[in-house]
Amino acid sequence: SSTRWMLLAASYSVWITTILWAVLSLGGLGTTASRLFNWHPVLASGAVLGALTPGILAHTARHSDDAKRRFRARLLHALCVLLAFIVLTIAVSVVYANHVQHKQPHFYSLHSWLGVTCLLLMKGNIVAGIASALFPRFQGGSFGTMHRYTGAFICFLSFMSAALGFAHMQDSLSRTSGGVWQVKVVLAGLLGAASLCVGTALILLLFSG
Amino acid sequence: SSTRWMLLAASYSVWITTILWAVLSLGGLGTTASRLFNWHPVLASGAVLGALTPGILAHTARHSDDAKRRFRARLLHALCVLLAFIVLTIAVSVVYANHVQHKQPHFYSLHSWLGVTCLLLMKGNIVAGIASALFPRFQGGSFGTMHRYTGAFICFLSFMSAALGFAHMQDSLSRTSGGVWQVKVVLAGLLGAASLCVGTALILLLFSG
Ligand code: HEM
Ligand code: HEM
Ligand code: HEM
Ligand code: HEM
Ligand SMILES: O=C1O[C@@H]([C@@H](O)CO)C(O)=C1O
Repeated sequence: SSTRWMLLAASYSVWITTILWAVLSLGGLGTTASRLFNWHPVLASGAVLGALTPGILAHTARHSDDAKRRFRARLLHALCVLLAFIVLTIAVSVVYANHVQHKQPHFYSLHSWLGVTCLLLMKGNIVAGIASALFPRFQGGSFGTMHRYTGAFICFLSFMSAALGFAHMQDSLSRTSGGVWQVKVVLAGLLGAASLCVGTALILLLFSG
Repeated sequence: SSTRWMLLAASYSVWITTILWAVLSLGGLGTTASRLFNWHPVLASGAVLGALTPGILAHTARHSDDAKRRFRARLLHALCVLLAFIVLTIAVSVVYANHVQHKQPHFYSLHSWLGVTCLLLMKGNIVAGIASALFPRFQGGSFGTMHRYTGAFICFLSFMSAALGFAHMQDSLSRTSGGVWQVKVVLAGLLGAASLCVGTALILLLFSG
């Protein structure tokens, strides 16, 4: 339906703005110092906004009567969500490496705790997803039902982690760039708010569709 | 049911821990500097964990056959939620006054934007709630249905705002108290995580009950 396409377009718009923000306002992407760090928001928000969103949206077509279309929707779901998991793992490795480079401690923030929880739960859901695809009728379909609820929860946590990440950036950039009303600072907050809007719309669609 | 009582107990436990944290680790409550600021987390989390939670929980008894019990549940819902709104308004006034005292700018963070959005939406939902109580059959009950969805959304936003507030404190306390592993710093993050758990459980209960 057109609602899904609009949501996909909104999600990609937020991601593209994030890339522009990282490249134009934060000094770009590279292998040293903050240029290494910048990969983290770009990749992590790409995983959530660019891969998880279409992965969840793909599946709302699962009720289709056509077995072939249903199969394609499920394949797209699985591929997008696996991509999200891989890209997120790289995004976390990058920020971990960046913290090693700067001799900073690890996993000290609510953002990082939620982020790691997301990754762990995703692993579980990938196993449950494959199980429910292989054995659709096993135990009265309870695998699929569990997978849907935990999937919605993971989706919620992922957007929440992204919002906390943007809020963190808004705060730290305001201290290093002389003011809370600098364009790059306000943009960090707006990107966080926009991610939350996309996430909320996605969850509402999941529960209503 | 016992699930609701457990959730209520969990919610109050998180709030009581927040009060202990403010009083024992952050220098207590008062009228100057950070002692004035400390009222903000104590009152705001009280509004969400201490008043909004029972207000939402009260209403899950609305399906009762007994008209008297149903009426009492609705009255409790309305009173708790009005209390949450009033206390939240005071909590925001306090931090606003604190920012004036310190000549700090206003409304510059994702946390504050979400917080103010909560308050605005709450006002609207109070009007819609009163309307749906007075005219239960108006337009096929569409007032009530709208009120439930926006109510669940406001609930989600409130817990989200609280989590962002705790994350903000975790971050700023780590800078002023020499280290990310100080008890009060880690506690700020844990209280944020605990609030999110309560909020998630509440939303799941709303959608399943
Ligand atoms: C769902 C997506 C995300 C996940 C799973 C995630 C995960 C993580 C993890 C695990 C760390 C800790 C690394 C360490 O301790 O060595 C971290 C750090 C960080 N992330 Fe993210 N992140 C995500 C999205 C974002 C976004 C979108 C931003 C910014 C726009 C961001 C900003 C930061 C910052 C500033 C840090 C360093 C400070 C800290 O450790 O809290 N993150 N992230
Ligand atoms: C992080 C990983 C994953 C997440 C967050 C996730 C999320 C979800 C969500 C939210 C739904 C419900 C969609 C709807 O109702 O429209 C769902 C359904 C489904 N997913 Fe996944 N998924 C993940 C991984 C996978 C994988 C790897 C596979 C297969 C190889 C898979 C197969 C399925 C199937 C078969 C269903 C339909 C279940 C049913 O309704 O009975 N999922 N998933
Ligand atoms: C849902 C509950 C909450 C609401 C509606 C809320 C609202 C607000 C608002 C509107 C401001 C901005 C004041 C100004 O600009 O002058 C603010 C600031 C602040 N709040 Fe909250 N708050 C809530 C919960 C919390 C909690 C639980 C904490 C901490 C544990 C917290 C920590 C802060 C901090 C550190 C600031 C100052 C920095 C900033 O403006 O972002 N808040 N809050
Ligand atoms: C910030 C304010 C409010 C919020 C967040 C809120 C939230 C909610 C939620 C989540 C529900 C659904 C409960 C469930 O399904 O178990 C609900 C139902 C209801 N609320 Fe509120 N509420 C608010 C204010 C009020 C007020 C002030 C009144 C009345 C004076 C009220 C009257 C009702 C009624 C009558 C229902 C039942 C509607 C129906 O199911 O048809 N609410 N509210
Ligand atoms: O904006 C503020 O944040 C808190 C925090 O910095 C205290 O640790 C505080 O007192 C403010 O006025």
